[in-house]
Amino acid sequence: MVWKAGDNFDIAISTRVRIARNFKDTIFPNRAADTALENVCLEVCKAVINSNSYISNEFDYIYMGNLSDAEKEKLIEKHLISPNLTNRKSAAGALINKSEQISIMINEEDHIRIQCILPGLSLEDAYDMADKIDDLLEENITFAFDDKLGYLTACPTNLGTGVRMSVMLHLPAMALTNNITSVLRTAGRYGLTIRGIYGEGTESMGDLYQISNQNSLGMTEKEILLNVKAVTKGVIKRERELRKMLFENDNPAIKDKIMRSYGVLKYAEKIDIRESMQLLSVIRLGADMGIIKDLEIEKINMLIKNIHPALLADVIEIDEEKMNIDIKRAEYIKSVLNS
Amino acid sequence: MVWKAGDNFDIAISTRVRIARNFKDTIFPNRAADTALENVCLEVCKAVINSNSYISNEFDYIYMGNLSDAEKEKLIEKHLISPNLTNRKSAAGALINKSEQISIMINEEDHIRIQCILPGLSLEDAYDMADKIDDLLEENITFAFDDKLGYLTACPTNLGTGVRMSVMLHLPAMALTNNITSVLRTAGRYGLTIRGIYGEGTESMGDLYQISNQNSLGMTEKEILLNVKAVTKGVIKRERELRKMLFENDNPAIKDKIMRSYGVLKYAEKIDIRESMQLLSVIRLGADMGIIKDLEIEKINMLIKNIHPALLADVIEIDEEKMNIDIKRAEYIKSVLNS
Repeated sequence: MVWKAGDNFDIAISTRVRIARNFKDTIFPNRAADTALENVCLEVCKAVINSNSYISNEFDYIYMGNLSDAEKEKLIEKHLISPNLTNRKSAAGALINKSEQISIMINEEDHIRIQCILPGLSLEDAYDMADKIDDLLEENITFAFDDKLGYLTACPTNLGTGVRMSVMLHLPAMALTNNITSVLRTAGRYGLTIRGIYGEGTESMGDLYQISNQNSLGMTEKEILLNVKAVTKGVIKRERELRKMLFENDNPAIKDKIMRSYGVLKYAEKIDIRESMQLLSVIRLGADMGIIKDLEIEKINMLIKNIHPALLADVIEIDEEKMNIDIKRAEYIKSVLNS
Repeated sequence: MVWKAGDNFDIAISTRVRIARNFKDTIFPNRAADTALENVCLEVCKAVINSNSYISNEFDYIYMGNLSDAEKEKLIEKHLISPNLTNRKSAAGALINKSEQISIMINEEDHIRIQCILPGLSLEDAYDMADKIDDLLEENITFAFDDKLGYLTACPTNLGTGVRMSVMLHLPAMALTNNITSVLRTAGRYGLTIRGIYGEGTESMGDLYQISNQNSLGMTEKEILLNVKAVTKGVIKRERELRKMLFENDNPAIKDKIMRSYGVLKYAEKIDIRESMQLLSVIRLGADMGIIKDLEIEKINMLIKNIHPALLADVIEIDEEKMNIDIKRAEYIKSVLNS
């Protein structure tokens, strides 16, 4: 995932478009034999690599059977593959491009899951990118398609367009003012869901929430996009209003909360992932509102991304048993904040 | 009170010796008429000012009736007078020397309360100083004295020598390891008491405790001194052992607690007295154990002294209604720690 600032970067962290596709005349992954699934892997790889598109040689093929647990975890933390995909020891893999903006998962729930992730609110660009990969694959692969139901998928919620569009939003002001529930309700009324990410169920870590369409049937891709975009913009507008409101009348309590969070992140000797995410959320709000001076939001975004166990091991040396991970996380956070 | 480092300054903050004396043939303050008490004030002032001692012109006379509430509060926070003394609107006062190490309260519970405070563990010096004032007063005043009971005082616990010796100790390691109760018990066995200061009853603020003799009868001044000194040295030794133990095996939890406390003090936008005292106690331990580098204990001592409401108003501008006192306290703490 790319975490550089994009459109509406103060609130929109990233946009993800996913397209689900399946091979015609091949059983869905959960019931198919390994030989059939190995063939799916082969055909998808061939379709990408043999295509005439300039992007074809930007992809690396990652075969699940060849990955260590740490490598799998790292790809999951980067949102490039799903935990589900790693359950399969063989006959599954992913094609990932060099910039890590495009991932094509093979034999997850569906035979093919195209996924594009871009920073900020970038629904059009992310959809265009995913759509191009879809076209490229369709040159060589015949997809399971029904005139009435559209693209066929393992789970009925993905029938039709097979498209899910989601935007990851940072909503600290909504969380601080207890407005999350009301946003969840509003989103539901428009056929969208909002879920906390990095947490379980709707619980959130670091006030990060993902807004996405619930259904992919009965609407065109364009309609889905416009709907997700409109509701997301509404949520962003509300979050901005609440941020402004929070800092009206020189609110010392909220300033205090922000500066203390900054102080703890700059001085803690050990810190777990949950607390880090919460404090980073608060200082991200502080940096956006100008309470913390000279702190780039990009630095905070980088931390939000890199403090997860597998990725952290990439940026700082960690004991094999991970006994010292909270100490190393604190060290890494300090090094970035003081850089 | 002087808060500069003294003997055993890592643990002993200050030493206080108090001598209670009363005029012969004058009723104790709680029952005496104002005219008699005004005469006591006059006689004590004359005794000090007319004495041949070089220290006689180092004293200022402070009359309770002339003080504002803020001035009274400030003297109390400096431990130069007691809250009791301020209850009297007239016929009461104090002679305080320029270095603020000596205070002679007039018409508190007793007619005369000589009090000397020195930094660190300095029982001999503080007693010598108080004893000199006692001699000086005795040149001109006849004290109430009984051959059997010794010096007579308003409260029987002060009979005999009229002497109370106390040492203020910083005991964060004992507090962290839950050893305070056992020290209280041990002290009691030796006829001493340990009380939390700045708190109510035995509760402490900032892990500061005062150890002192319970009785002043049946022992000479020297015996009292040696007893208080021996027990205090035992407590200091135990606290040092516990500090060492806490940091054995590179204890990351305690290091984390220290550094987070430092971070909060350096970044908070508002902070109340109780939390400040607690965090200052923890960083004082951290500075002593070398966990926090380049932070002089004197700076922390100065903060522990100055963050109390009346004294704080002396070092930083505070709204008259004291609405912003927690904000100003945070500002002051940051300015000292960053200086």
